[in-house]
Amino acid sequence: MDVISTRRDFHRYPEVGFTEFRTASKVVELLDSFGYQVIYGPDALEGNARQGVPSEEVLEKSFNRALEDGANPEIIEKMKGGYTAVIGIIKGKEDGPTVAFRFDMDALPVRESTDSDHFPQMEGFRSKYEGYMHACAHDGHTAIGLGLAEKLSDRQFAGTVKLIFQPAEEGVRGAYSIVKKGMLDDVNYLFCQHLGTNVPLGEFHGGSLGFLATTKMVAHFYGISSHAGASPEEGRNALLGAATALLNIHAIPRFSSGSTRINVGVLEGGTAANIIPEYAKMVIETRSVSEETNEELLRRVKNILSHSAAMYELQHKVEIVGKAIPINCSQDLIELAMAEAKQTEGFTSVKPYEESGSTGSEDASFMIKRVQENGGQGTYMIIGTDIPAPHHHPKFDIQEEVLLRSVELLNRIARKLLK
Amino acid sequence: MDVISTRRDFHRYPEVGFTEFRTASKVVELLDSFGYQVIYGPDALEGNARQGVPSEEVLEKSFNRALEDGANPEIIEKMKGGYTAVIGIIKGKEDGPTVAFRFDMDALPVRESTDSDHFPQMEGFRSKYEGYMHACAHDGHTAIGLGLAEKLSDRQFAGTVKLIFQPAEEGVRGAYSIVKKGMLDDVNYLFCQHLGTNVPLGEFHGGSLGFLATTKMVAHFYGISSHAGASPEEGRNALLGAATALLNIHAIPRFSSGSTRINVGVLEGGTAANIIPEYAKMVIETRSVSEETNEELLRRVKNILSHSAAMYELQHKVEIVGKAIPINCSQDLIELAMAEAKQTEGFTSVKPYEESGSTGSEDASFMIKRVQENGGQGTYMIIGTDIPAPHHHPKFDIQEEVLLRSVELLNRIARKLLK
Amino acid sequence: MDVISTRRDFHRYPEVGFTEFRTASKVVELLDSFGYQVIYGPDALEGNARQGVPSEEVLEKSFNRALEDGANPEIIEKMKGGYTAVIGIIKGKEDGPTVAFRFDMDALPVRESTDSDHFPQMEGFRSKYEGYMHACAHDGHTAIGLGLAEKLSDRQFAGTVKLIFQPAEEGVRGAYSIVKKGMLDDVNYLFCQHLGTNVPLGEFHGGSLGFLATTKMVAHFYGISSHAGASPEEGRNALLGAATALLNIHAIPRFSSGSTRINVGVLEGGTAANIIPEYAKMVIETRSVSEETNEELLRRVKNILSHSAAMYELQHKVEIVGKAIPINCSQDLIELAMAEAKQTEGFTSVKPYEESGSTGSEDASFMIKRVQENGGQGTYMIIGTDIPAPHHHPKFDIQEEVLLRSVELLNRIARKLLK
Amino acid sequence: MDVISTRRDFHRYPEVGFTEFRTASKVVELLDSFGYQVIYGPDALEGNARQGVPSEEVLEKSFNRALEDGANPEIIEKMKGGYTAVIGIIKGKEDGPTVAFRFDMDALPVRESTDSDHFPQMEGFRSKYEGYMHACAHDGHTAIGLGLAEKLSDRQFAGTVKLIFQPAEEGVRGAYSIVKKGMLDDVNYLFCQHLGTNVPLGEFHGGSLGFLATTKMVAHFYGISSHAGASPEEGRNALLGAATALLNIHAIPRFSSGSTRINVGVLEGGTAANIIPEYAKMVIETRSVSEETNEELLRRVKNILSHSAAMYELQHKVEIVGKAIPINCSQDLIELAMAEAKQTEGFTSVKPYEESGSTGSEDASFMIKRVQENGGQGTYMIIGTDIPAPHHHPKFDIQEEVLLRSVELLNRIARKLLK
Repeated sequence: MDVISTRRDFHRYPEVGFTEFRTASKVVELLDSFGYQVIYGPDALEGNARQGVPSEEVLEKSFNRALEDGANPEIIEKMKGGYTAVIGIIKGKEDGPTVAFRFDMDALPVRESTDSDHFPQMEGFRSKYEGYMHACAHDGHTAIGLGLAEKLSDRQFAGTVKLIFQPAEEGVRGAYSIVKKGMLDDVNYLFCQHLGTNVPLGEFHGGSLGFLATTKMVAHFYGISSHAGASPEEGRNALLGAATALLNIHAIPRFSSGSTRINVGVLEGGTAANIIPEYAKMVIETRSVSEETNEELLRRVKNILSHSAAMYELQHKVEIVGKAIPINCSQDLIELAMAEAKQTEGFTSVKPYEESGSTGSEDASFMIKRVQENGGQGTYMIIGTDIPAPHHHPKFDIQEEVLLRSVELLNRIARKLLK
Repeated sequence: MDVISTRRDFHRYPEVGFTEFRTASKVVELLDSFGYQVIYGPDALEGNARQGVPSEEVLEKSFNRALEDGANPEIIEKMKGGYTAVIGIIKGKEDGPTVAFRFDMDALPVRESTDSDHFPQMEGFRSKYEGYMHACAHDGHTAIGLGLAEKLSDRQFAGTVKLIFQPAEEGVRGAYSIVKKGMLDDVNYLFCQHLGTNVPLGEFHGGSLGFLATTKMVAHFYGISSHAGASPEEGRNALLGAATALLNIHAIPRFSSGSTRINVGVLEGGTAANIIPEYAKMVIETRSVSEETNEELLRRVKNILSHSAAMYELQHKVEIVGKAIPINCSQDLIELAMAEAKQTEGFTSVKPYEESGSTGSEDASFMIKRVQENGGQGTYMIIGTDIPAPHHHPKFDIQEEVLLRSVELLNRIARKLLK
Repeated sequence: MDVISTRRDFHRYPEVGFTEFRTASKVVELLDSFGYQVIYGPDALEGNARQGVPSEEVLEKSFNRALEDGANPEIIEKMKGGYTAVIGIIKGKEDGPTVAFRFDMDALPVRESTDSDHFPQMEGFRSKYEGYMHACAHDGHTAIGLGLAEKLSDRQFAGTVKLIFQPAEEGVRGAYSIVKKGMLDDVNYLFCQHLGTNVPLGEFHGGSLGFLATTKMVAHFYGISSHAGASPEEGRNALLGAATALLNIHAIPRFSSGSTRINVGVLEGGTAANIIPEYAKMVIETRSVSEETNEELLRRVKNILSHSAAMYELQHKVEIVGKAIPINCSQDLIELAMAEAKQTEGFTSVKPYEESGSTGSEDASFMIKRVQENGGQGTYMIIGTDIPAPHHHPKFDIQEEVLLRSVELLNRIARKLLK
Repeated sequence: MDVISTRRDFHRYPEVGFTEFRTASKVVELLDSFGYQVIYGPDALEGNARQGVPSEEVLEKSFNRALEDGANPEIIEKMKGGYTAVIGIIKGKEDGPTVAFRFDMDALPVRESTDSDHFPQMEGFRSKYEGYMHACAHDGHTAIGLGLAEKLSDRQFAGTVKLIFQPAEEGVRGAYSIVKKGMLDDVNYLFCQHLGTNVPLGEFHGGSLGFLATTKMVAHFYGISSHAGASPEEGRNALLGAATALLNIHAIPRFSSGSTRINVGVLEGGTAANIIPEYAKMVIETRSVSEETNEELLRRVKNILSHSAAMYELQHKVEIVGKAIPINCSQDLIELAMAEAKQTEGFTSVKPYEESGSTGSEDASFMIKRVQENGGQGTYMIIGTDIPAPHHHPKFDIQEEVLLRSVELLNRIARKLLK
């Protein structure tokens, strides 16, 4: 299997969260061909524990598109409705611990650049799905996972390897459903990783600081429309409620317990100039350095939403569509990863983590927490690559030489722990 | 009794709502001297039905001041605690209907002008109580009432005359307590009147259009203070709740059922720059052409207050401190009054009412409504006088020649109805 | 020409404001066939004076659709870009005044009902353009205009008849551009009319009260996006600015000069939970009984928009997309129309106007005002028809018998004034 | 001089910022009696660089009260208008560096407890000025400064001692005016200190972490009043502008550059329910870990104030009434102070600083910065004392045994640096 052409294939067919039918189908086929036991569909994730699942219509449209673009019909039949997680398991010759690696597969709703200096455009593997793009390196992550799968198919180790291919990391929506299904329960060591994140090619971090607890939600306000000229008093104005909520959510105080973030990222409501708006929708997120503070932010946001609605005699509903918690990397694994990186060609700068930390969020946090709760260890590593444009940007790209050396590094790490 | 010097005496000692101890004491003494049956104190008003009663401290201070300034101790002892209504009743030689006149007695918290061209200053009867002033002609109203009382003391009529001297018209706080006590229950004809209101000397209106229903209230928000630097999240910010309420109260929609008005006239809260504010107070009023719409406005204001408080986890309380309803003058009385005015010297322009109507409010409305509910009739008349400055202004004044002709007019009206 | 089948043809092909290519093409052809001088395209309206013109893309798509559905290519070539007004002029045998009638042609973005009891569905003339519908009777208005055109083609009158077929009445966007082009400058008498408006079949009003001055506008706020977790302070939040504007626009005070209305009917902004929103759009309208007060409302709305934007360091733009003024119907024409209605079969109840007035708006107001400014007269008449559902509703319909009697009435009116 | 009875005397006559006439007069007299060169009045501070100076009326009243309570008339004549800083300078027998100590003298507007278990009540030195109290230990600070002055009056050292007695530390209003006058320009070593701050008796910190940059301001909004019923549209509503500002100031985003704080601590406006409010006042503060971010917060607050005012066509004014910057204690001085504390009886726990830092603010920061800019060193020390109630609380008190050991410690520090 060629890691680079595999990555380019994924890049060409970007699929967003819970619609990774084609990508997951390819992963199943390859893991199977390498001799792995493969778990997927409803066996690999708990359906009700997913968050922000697309509409039936979107799921079906994506399903059909995947079929047209070469997904295996028998395999994806089992993934219907957005059950797009895949777990590959392979046992070594001897007994030993279980080492897991996690790879995310989903793309983003970003229109990829057509500029002639954009490498995927130049080389002919730009996104075929207009308006969607692998702009966060998950195509590379998945390809690395498959490269690692092939290497470990020799079974020359003591213990078990578990490769977790996750849907819907964007919006932190998918990982928890895999944890909930019990897929992490037997894992002793868990490694998650990301390419890029402002770390240059050749640099490697054995862990990470500062992933924030976060909750993403959608609030719906339901009022009553009426004619704005003839009977304004008969309406119940959903936009007045929503605007009040928006301002007051932003006015939630700073916390002395540490950094917090709050954003109302989307507000949409109303239909016409002369109609009292009967519906409004808001997309909101909270973040904090601690789960506890994030829960308090969430409680306050919900309270503001509830009373902003009631103030205008509106009905309302809040849907949680994404959630992540902070990550505390296990010190032993950070050091082990650093030691292996130092011996892997291509890594010239090896650090435990960026002191300044991150302000992003990752749902791998649920996986690492579960492993640690069971007495295991986990870490979230950063593998540097120069990037021509920031993550989530139309011109985002990675340097492909990072792919093979990442495979090599993960392979070393796995074998080190499995004697 | 000299009407003009009586008015000047009241002008010199202005007493605001429910503190009219000295004024009411003089009224009691004079009515008594004219042979009237006099009802006052708790017999004349229902204590619990008063609104916006001053604090115990203010009541006591005013009481003592009245004592010093010549109020009759025995009389005002009965008025202690703000029971400052006085009703004078006199029966004619023969049986007949009951005709009532209402006069308001209270002054305003306005500092009277010391300008040399201000007539009360010039003539030496400027307010002795600094910061308080008869700036709405109630001194004149009360003097007219006493002048009328003297005239009717001859009992040369058939029926009963009832003269109602009311406290606390300003803020529409007193009339309802007199109605509630049953004082209007036997009245067949009720005449209320006001001097001025932009109607020139010599003009008279037999009725009025457009007094609005209104409610005045005070809202209190109770939060928790905390240090704004050290632990902002521990506070519950009363000012954020109040500012949210203020904006949203002003955003209550227009009503297609007719004119409405809403105002948050006062907002006060907080103690220092570095303290999360724990308390805020708002003074609010609603107005509308109909009682029903005013009730709906009040319901919405209360709902907004309640949810603005709850949004910030504040306790809150709403006190109603004043209330009036619209006035529908009885057509027959308008005409009767006009007919008498035409025959009274000094009235050169006689109209039923101002077409453009008023946007003010009057708690005489409760009295008129009660009389009309019982099958009687009522009206609210305007007696013109030129004024050098608007009502409630430090240089407000009336032309004193209006006083005697008003006495004469009311006398004619009474005798007309009592044969 | 059959008025009913002409109405059904227009109903089947509903075209919204400035895209009435097929409708206007049919109007041109028929007027031409009746011997009228026909003015259309840029000769009939001032392009820059139109408001709320659709995008180039929408215009082109509608143009092509009209071609497919039988519009005359040569005629609509002249209407390209949304120049869809048509004026038909015919001179009588003798000299005399100019009498004009105005008919509006545009449909609405409403999806027509498919219920089996919906008359157009039953009779097979339901809208062919899904999502668009004649739900305000303009199909009937246009058919009446053509029926009248045919009647008057006998030229048995003294003077000139001018039939004005107007685009884009919905949103009050089209009339002013025809006025601006001078099309009303020679008119002595102008009659505008509407079917329905809650007036039953058989009833007729010679005039109308209470059309409000109105302005419709779209406000755009342009900020800067940034990552809500990593660098919230680098963003300039368009939604915070828009929510502030929305609340404060609704808090604009009542006016003592008469009824006002204000509505923010649409607010949309932002892209994702984790992005500081960089763009927001609001659709707003003001209404008032007077042009002057409406201008003051508009000034205050613009001021609030401007400072809400600047408060968040946003750029902004306000587009006026619709505008109307009040209508003062000429008393003489009201009476003339009533007199003729009384003599027209089918009108059993004839009134000058509804006392309670309207709270709607009409851009025919600009036409009537221009005629009156030049010393002419104008009126806006209501022709009753029962309707199974309100205007703008998916099941709106008219009773077709109203069409011929309307033609007859307008014919009588025209001939009365032209001797 | 007895330090404890001196402290009790100051406690009994608490004077708030820039009214410390009696206190400063006593300081001048004592320093003079110890042989110090004494600078005070306009020679000791730059009048225009003071912030939040009380009104003329308050200054005069306090001045007269001080006279009555024993202030030296000649001395305080020079302090008239709030020039209440005092600097004492004494040269040792030999040349050497200049070592300065800073003591703050002002009290707080807090009503002191009358509880029988409140030590100053029990011992008869409770505040004589009702509503004012030394609730932040500045009485102790000043007494320590005078104790130190007496000790160092032996001149047995090499160099110069400068004792700075500062007005108006509360509200961070006074220090900058002393810096601006050049009083710190010749200082090589500066020691500031505070009693208490949650550090127990016996503990000592040689420095402090985390004093925040802060700005305190008062915003005034000036509108136009009008009658809320008769002509609401003629008003320009200061409270609507202020409430809008308040909400939006609280909605200023978090900064990724570090902790920030924002508070609107006071909002007051309006006069009566039926009047459109013409004036409103807000008291606001910002805080941040860096001067730069605090300046950016201030810029945004001012921008919001400006546009909230303009949105309602209000005039406005922003007064800066207090300002402080972060403190970076010089490491050498922290260690020197710790070394001396370890040798001073009574200090059993000696630390460099509290790791968790402070979120308070101190205008000694300007003094320390000036000394450091000139190549000198400065630190802010904490001297522990148990307290029965928090700082600024009516029952705040210190343990008086801390006073003498503080004098001893400062004396050791001075002599250490002056050989």
